[in-house]
Amino acid sequence: MFCNGRTALYPINELFLSRQSVYALTGEAISQEQLMTLFEAAHWAPSSYNNQPTRFIYAHCNTPEWQNLFELMVPANQTWAQHAAVLVVTVSKQTMGPKNTPSPTHSFEAGAAWMSLAIQAEIMALVVHGMSGFDYEKARTSLCIPEGFTVQMMCAIGKRATQHAEVKLLERDAKPTSRKSLEEIAAAGKFSFNE
Amino acid sequence: MFCNGRTALYPINELFLSRQSVYALTGEAISQEQLMTLFEAAHWAPSSYNNQPTRFIYAHCNTPEWQNLFELMVPANQTWAQHAAVLVVTVSKQTMGPKNTPSPTHSFEAGAAWMSLAIQAEIMALVVHGMSGFDYEKARTSLCIPEGFTVQMMCAIGKRATQHAEVKLLERDAKPTSRKSLEEIAAAGKFSFNE
Repeated sequence: MFCNGRTALYPINELFLSRQSVYALTGEAISQEQLMTLFEAAHWAPSSYNNQPTRFIYAHCNTPEWQNLFELMVPANQTWAQHAAVLVVTVSKQTMGPKNTPSPTHSFEAGAAWMSLAIQAEIMALVVHGMSGFDYEKARTSLCIPEGFTVQMMCAIGKRATQHAEVKLLERDAKPTSRKSLEEIAAAGKFSFNE
Repeated sequence: MFCNGRTALYPINELFLSRQSVYALTGEAISQEQLMTLFEAAHWAPSSYNNQPTRFIYAHCNTPEWQNLFELMVPANQTWAQHAAVLVVTVSKQTMGPKNTPSPTHSFEAGAAWMSLAIQAEIMALVVHGMSGFDYEKARTSLCIPEGFTVQMMCAIGKRATQHAEVKLLERDAKPTSRKSLEEIAAAGKFSFNE
């Protein structure tokens, strides 16, 4: 099947192909209701012993909180993410249970929760664009993230611009990334990838 | 909205509520085509610099590879997962790029890929049930997982049994887990959760 310039060999739901880490955003805001709908989807993701380690810290554009999150990003990300509606920092709790037992899966589970958010966004025709290009240590201090929580990643949420945006960004968005072949990521019985 | 015994305050797609880590499985096999469809969905998940760190090692039931993966699980998981169609171990590459730079996000990205798999499975009416209850070190040796890759988690994939299964499992499945309130997982501006 073919969708969004991408070819899938197997009949997956189209949203996995149409979802894209878009760069050209309109600068329009989204509502608090829309944002909470994304977090609602995220928090139904599974986690070991239903520990739910994932936390989201967010700022809508045109609010006092925005600048603090905006300043965390490297300049290359600020360039396009300045037109986002919301910036989000995702963190996860390193321990679980009443005795604060170390969790081996909190980072993985944060990724699962975030992917639910990204898929709900795709269903709502919103862009979610993940980033590791930001100051992790500054995030910890400026967002008051305590010990025992890992800063995982940032994302920009917004509306896709198909015109009235930087030509360079529009051109980049017109070429969605491809993926490895399935033989390179899935194997029967044992690890037999050529790495 | 209400679905599968769960209440959502915001209008998310129903699949986030209907997806459940079901215990009672039928023992039926699934086809290689169905399994590859799940990996196809997984591998379109985003990753930093499109590094695609996630790898899946799998075994269908009734194949020579099955026993090796089955023996990794703790007895409590073997009890129900013996009726799975496929067992999968998810691992992720710790580095990225030609210079093998450490990746701060590989575990998170593996979780994102796995969640795509779980959502595609829900669309196909298949169960995907994640587990951390297995021998991580034994997985490394018995599946030949090399240094530089992190063993993340296992999952069982199968078909949901609604009868002809252990009553204890059916009763457990009849009570899907709930989640924290959104105030406990999302905050504006800074980390302000009561942890």
